[in-house]
Order: sequence, then C-alpha cells, then structure tokens
Amino acid sequence: MKKLAALVILILRFYVDSCTSDSAHPGYPQSSGFCGLQSDELIVDSFRLQQQIDELASFSDSSAPSVTRILYSEADVRARRYIKDLMDSSGLIVREDGVGNIFGRWEGSDSMAPAIATGSHTDAIPFSGKYDGVVGVLGAIEAINALNRTGFKPRRSLEVIMFTSEEPTRFGISCLGSRLLAGLPNMKSSLERVVDKDNISFPDAAAIAGYEFALETLLEVPLKEDTYAAFVELHIEQGPILEEEGIAIGIVTAIAAPASLKVDFRGDGGHAGAVLMPSRNDAGLAAAELALAVEKHVLETQSADTVGTTGVLELYPGAVNSIPSAAHIEIDIRDIDEQRRNSVIQHIKVSASEIATRRHVHLDFQIVTQDPPAASSQKIVKAIESASQQLGLTSKHMISRAYHDSLFMARVSPMGMIFIPCYRGYSHRPDEFASREDLSNGIKVLALSLLALSSDL
Amino acid sequence: MKKLAALVILILRFYVDSCTSDSAHPGYPQSSGFCGLQSDELIVDSFRLQQQIDELASFSDSSAPSVTRILYSEADVRARRYIKDLMDSSGLIVREDGVGNIFGRWEGSDSMAPAIATGSHTDAIPFSGKYDGVVGVLGAIEAINALNRTGFKPRRSLEVIMFTSEEPTRFGISCLGSRLLAGLPNMKSSLERVVDKDNISFPDAAAIAGYEFALETLLEVPLKEDTYAAFVELHIEQGPILEEEGIAIGIVTAIAAPASLKVDFRGDGGHAGAVLMPSRNDAGLAAAELALAVEKHVLETQSADTVGTTGVLELYPGAVNSIPSAAHIEIDIRDIDEQRRNSVIQHIKVSASEIATRRHVHLDFQIVTQDPPAASSQKIVKAIESASQQLGLTSKHMISRAYHDSLFMARVSPMGMIFIPCYRGYSHRPDEFASREDLSNGIKVLALSLLALSSDL
Repeated sequence: MKKLAALVILILRFYVDSCTSDSAHPGYPQSSGFCGLQSDELIVDSFRLQQQIDELASFSDSSAPSVTRILYSEADVRARRYIKDLMDSSGLIVREDGVGNIFGRWEGSDSMAPAIATGSHTDAIPFSGKYDGVVGVLGAIEAINALNRTGFKPRRSLEVIMFTSEEPTRFGISCLGSRLLAGLPNMKSSLERVVDKDNISFPDAAAIAGYEFALETLLEVPLKEDTYAAFVELHIEQGPILEEEGIAIGIVTAIAAPASLKVDFRGDGGHAGAVLMPSRNDAGLAAAELALAVEKHVLETQSADTVGTTGVLELYPGAVNSIPSAAHIEIDIRDIDEQRRNSVIQHIKVSASEIATRRHVHLDFQIVTQDPPAASSQKIVKAIESASQQLGLTSKHMISRAYHDSLFMARVSPMGMIFIPCYRGYSHRPDEFASREDLSNGIKVLALSLLALSSDL
Repeated sequence: MKKLAALVILILRFYVDSCTSDSAHPGYPQSSGFCGLQSDELIVDSFRLQQQIDELASFSDSSAPSVTRILYSEADVRARRYIKDLMDSSGLIVREDGVGNIFGRWEGSDSMAPAIATGSHTDAIPFSGKYDGVVGVLGAIEAINALNRTGFKPRRSLEVIMFTSEEPTRFGISCLGSRLLAGLPNMKSSLERVVDKDNISFPDAAAIAGYEFALETLLEVPLKEDTYAAFVELHIEQGPILEEEGIAIGIVTAIAAPASLKVDFRGDGGHAGAVLMPSRNDAGLAAAELALAVEKHVLETQSADTVGTTGVLELYPGAVNSIPSAAHIEIDIRDIDEQRRNSVIQHIKVSASEIATRRHVHLDFQIVTQDPPAASSQKIVKAIESASQQLGLTSKHMISRAYHDSLFMARVSPMGMIFIPCYRGYSHRPDEFASREDLSNGIKVLALSLLALSSDL
C-alpha cells in the first residue's frame, strides 16, 4: 500500500512540476484535466470539515442550533483564533491587518506574480446558522489541504482570506473588511462616527477584540494594485434554485446591487391611557406605515428581482402602556438593476416624508450603503465551468441576490463565485444546512479553479 | 416663638381630642373645618419632599433625567428599603407581605375599626419620570407627617401602602400587588407561568429581591374583609386637563376600563437578499399591519374616550438583512365604556386573524388583562371636595383614563383618587413634572381627607 501511495505521489509530482514549469508552452494540453491532475486524485476530508463547522458553530452568543457571532465579540475573537490556527496547521503563512482581516498564504514558485485569493467571513447575524460564510473559509482551507495532498505546488501564490464583519449587525456597515480592502472612500469618517446599540464606538469595540489601532492603521488596509490576479468565493446559495433543480454547482455571473437605509421617527410619546388619540404623534405607527410602504414600493416594480426588507424595527421606550416616542427601522433593498433599486429608494424616501408630515413626527432618513452590482470575470467563470465539467458535476450560471465580500473584492481583482445548494434555500436561520456531499463538490470545484488560476500566467 | 408654638399645639390638641372623642355627638359642628383643624395649621415640607423625589429617582437603571425601575431589580429593592426607612422614621409600623406590598400603619385610637389607607407605587417603566406613583407614596408619608405635626390623633388607623409592580413592564401584569390584595382569581397560575424577556420566572425574580416564598405565600396576600373603610390615592393627572384649565385638584369619579393584549406572529424568515417577495411570509409586516389596525379600530368608535396603543413591537431575529421570522407586539386598550372597549378588542382579534391568513403567518393572540372600570365612593369624593374647599383650592370631577392600583383596591374597599396637574400632561417620559406648589396642594387635600375619613364612624 505504502509503495503504491508513494508511486501516486511521485506521478502527481511529475504531472504538477511539468505543469508549473511547462504550461507556458502554447502546446500544453489543457484539455487533459488541470495541469494533468486527475479529479479523482483530489480528496476532500468532508468528515473533518463537518467537525470544524460544528466546532466553529459552538463559538456563539446564542444557544445551538442557532449561531450568533457579532463583530469583535468574544465569540468572534475565538473564531478568529480558531481560523488562524487552522491556517497555520495547513502550512499557510498567517498575517492580519489592523481591522482583523486574516490572510493565510501559500507561497507560489513565482512569488512576485499577483496571487490567487479565496475566502469569505465567519461572523453570523443573531440566531442564524452554521454555513453562511463559514463554508467559504473552512472550505478554502480544506481546498488548500486537498491540493497539498496531491503534491501540487502553486506557481502564483494562493491566499485564504477571512474577512472582518461581512454582516452589518453591529455597526450597520456590511462587508466592512472587504470595503476597506477595496479602498472605498469615506470609510474612516464613517468608522469614526458609528456606535453600536450599546453606544460602543468602532475603535473601542475593536480595541476590546485586540485591534487597538484599528482607526490609526486604516490607511494600510487597502490592497495594493495587482495584489490578486483572481478572487474566488465559495458560498451556500442562500436561495432554493440549485436544490429545486438538482444542480450541484452555481456559477455566479453577477452580484445584485444592495442598499441599506436607517430611518428614525421621533414623536412626543406619553401615557397610553391618558393621551387621547387626536393629541398623539406615535412614532411607532409611523414606522409601521413605512415598513408596509417598503413592501408596496418593491411590489410596484413588478420585477421578480427587486426585494426589500424591514429587518429592524425598534420602539422606544418599548413599554405596553407607553406611546412610542421614537422608532428606529433599518431597511434592506436589492436588485440586479441598480437604476430600478435606486428609484425604489427614492419612493421610500418620499413615503417617509409624507408619513412624518401627516403624523407630525420628526424624520431622520439615512442611506447607509448604496452599492453598484458587480460582474464576475469571464476567465474565472470559465475556470469554474471547466472544474465542474472535469468533476462531472452539473452546473448553471446564476445571479447572486445576496451580497458577499466578492462584491467589493471585484473592485480590486477579477472576481468569481461558486454556489452550492442549501436546504430549502434557508439562510440566516438556525436550520441553514448544506450536505457533506454538496460541500465536498464545492470544495473540489474551488480547488481545481484555484489550481488552474494559479498555474495560468 | 417657642411659647407661641407650644400654644398652637395646645389649642390643636384640644380641637383634635375634642374631635376624636366628641364627633359622635350629632350636635358636633362639622362645618368648622375638619374636626376643628384649620387648614393653615397643616404644614407640608415640600422642600424635603422634593429632595426625597430626587433621591428616589437616583435609584434607576437608566441615566437621569430618565428613570427606569423595574419590578425586583436592584433599583426597585433600593427604593423599597428607602420607603420602609421613611415610614419607620415617620413613626409608622412597617410590615411587608410575601410579594413585597409594603404597609406603614399609624395605629388609631379605635384600632379594631377598619383602617383608612392611602398609597401608590414606586416602580417605573423604562426611561420614564420621577412622579408617576412616587407622588402617591412619598406624598402619603408627608401627609401623615403633616397631620402628626398638628398633634392630630387618628381614631381609625391610617395606613400608607407601597404597591408592588403597578407597571406591567417585567411580567406583562399591571397592578400586580393590588390585584393580589384584591384577591383576583387565577393570579397564582399566571404567576407560575410568566417569565420576563430574559426568561427569568416570577418566583426566581422575587427570590433575587428577597421574597423567597412569593408563590408559597400568595394565599396570605389578599386583604381580609373590612380591612379598610376607605382607600385614597394621590397621583399626577398624567393628562393635560388640570394644567390647561388652571385647576388645582382633580377629583376622580371613575377609572377607565383597561385591557392589554399580547400578539405573536411567526413566519419562515430567511435571507433578505435571496428570498424573493412572493415566497415570503414576513412576520414583521403582519405586526406592522396589526399596529395600524389597532389605531383604525379605535378611531372607528368615534369616541374621544377610547384609546389604543401598540407600545411594544419586537422583531426576531432583528437584523437588517434578515426577513423577520417572528414578531411580538403588546397592545393597550382603554375606555370608560367597558362594552365599547371589548368590541374594539374583538375587531382587533378579527383583523389579526385576517392578516395572519393573508400573510401565511402563524398567529398567537392573547388577552392578558381585561378589567372592568371602577367607580369612586361618594363618601370619599365628598371628603376630597370638602378638603379642597377648606383649602380654598379649585377642583373638578374627572375620569382617570390611566389605570391605578385604586382600580383593584376598589374591589375590597371604598375608593377615591386625588389628581394634581402635571407639566403638559406628560407622563412615562423623563420630562414628567409636577410643581412643588401642586404637590403641596395635593398632599394637604389628602391629609384633610384622611383626617375626615379617619374620624368618621
């Protein structure tokens, strides 16, 4: 047995070395698998992966099966340590930037060439699940391990990234880490202003998690030009299509354009028994009306691709016998058509003013984020297609209606995404689930895509 | 000066003694003030009272000027100790029942006769003010002190009561202490069931506050028949009428009929980007619709006396990019007409079912309390009228739209209430305010009413 294994490794090394040295030759037969690596030589340890997913899920501020892992919380810090340890034991060189984006690098033979990156996030919104984001981080590390086991040596360096705070839960800013890596403007001024619901500022929260100089080092976070030749993210679909159609791999061609709004209404409040109806200016009812207006304006577009959600609605003081004197709501609007999404936002804004005027409440309307959509790189889409074919997996092109760190990585690198099916399309719920087989398929497709992109000059 | 004071006391003693011993004689001149006590001999220390109000306000879980003092919290426990100390230093005999209703007794010459009680509550809903309830407890103790200073000796014993949890904040049950004193049915089974928002049970919360046997001793809490010949509560109006009309004293003839509802909607939730609009059953939008339906059904009565409020509306999981899978709302409905109020509740229930069916969400509709209105005792109303006249204060009869412990004390004793003006009618807000002069007037009216009722056979 040992001899056979040794032989396999030997053969692999030959294939791979010949690949990393010769694939520049125009005559190199790309058709015969990836640099000659045969798909059945790629082994994913899906048992260990499942153990890691379950262990990571135990770092949570809510009880199982739900997961709550908020930016810079103790659970988040434990997850970060766990990921860095995994990267380290997979032989990756670990580094971390000032806000906690974590990078694990596998040095390639051509270490000066722009690298190939993959990754996702491990933070989780309150009472959500085990797979969102996590699959793209633990899966990426396992893809590296799988390539490693074949004896493959990358030409371009490979990097696994764990992004800080893809979820907007704590400070209302989604994809915080990737926005900063992409060098988006005005981030510093926002991060100097924001506070969480307990009135803790961003730098204070970061310091508690061990990032004492988060604000001071912001300028060093953005990626230098040509850091990456490609960025590929593996993720659960978070929608029902792949499962319903029995397709193994979703190849993302574009990410929908997300926007988020914060709206505050303020009235006089007062005693629920003593203040008569005509004397009231109930901030809670203004918020209720606006939440329904969001749904109305989204449906008015008559487009299946436009979605709008009021996920946060908080009343103050929040007592049954007290008229709400303030209401805070947060709205999420997405579309694959940026113009259409922006016009929905305008309609919502008009409704908010109309409601505030009619109900005599003060209005504060804030557009927190309003991002353009992102298109995948054709080269990466092709690499994912070939990998799926090579593995004999069914695949289809699709739109990502959920946003991801890829949305912002697309600004500084060619980008692509690999989706795998998840149970009933559920996500942001405790019963979020992806099967070991689907995970294994996604990781193999990711591994072969990284291999091809790494070998490509 | 000393001599003069001594003389005054001497004269008073004569009046008062003659009162408590002779007022049984039909020929006794009731017209000449209360048992001969002249109103200008009644001195209220409104400076010290204000200091006490401010000190009590400092026992709070929110920062000044707001007050948050929830049942059995540390702030509540400190307030209880403070009140017991004040009662003690006013010479009252202090006792406490198993749920923390506190009684301070001034033993009368006829200690077997049913006593005269007064009092209110000191718990405060989140981010509210200094005066709601507090005026009726600190004011009652000061009224006792004022009577004491005149040398008056009561025939019927006088008792000051601090009721446990008039506010429903923690367990959703308003007037917890007075409901128990009145011996309302099913309280034990409710209190065995209820938990607060942190899932802490009633007995556990009570034990933390030092009431280890709250449930076991429930049977001993209800008042024996004829414990009290009268109960009088001093309170801020919590409405704008007295201030607007420049009237010093409101004489409550009836307390409106309050009811409270808890409604829960449950849907599937999911990712705000990935789940398309037709596949959604958003529990938050169902709650928003119901909050607006409450307002609609109340306004449909076209009665100025009907009020309805959605003071609590909570979304789960409460993240901007997550479709609410659950929504909890709490509704407060009041009216001076019990039938009309009950029909509004029925309309709300019908709307809730219609909304749940249309939006494909699960509905849990619970009527938590649905209390009848209470009428004041004519004898007590007359005593308050005479006291106001005696003091040369303007007064008017009015309805209490806010409920009070008096609503339940009315079931076991003749009941009456004294209202004083408050700034703009504001209550349950940090800027809740009553002037020292208005406080002083209310306390004098209370003192003279207690004196008359105590002397009355």
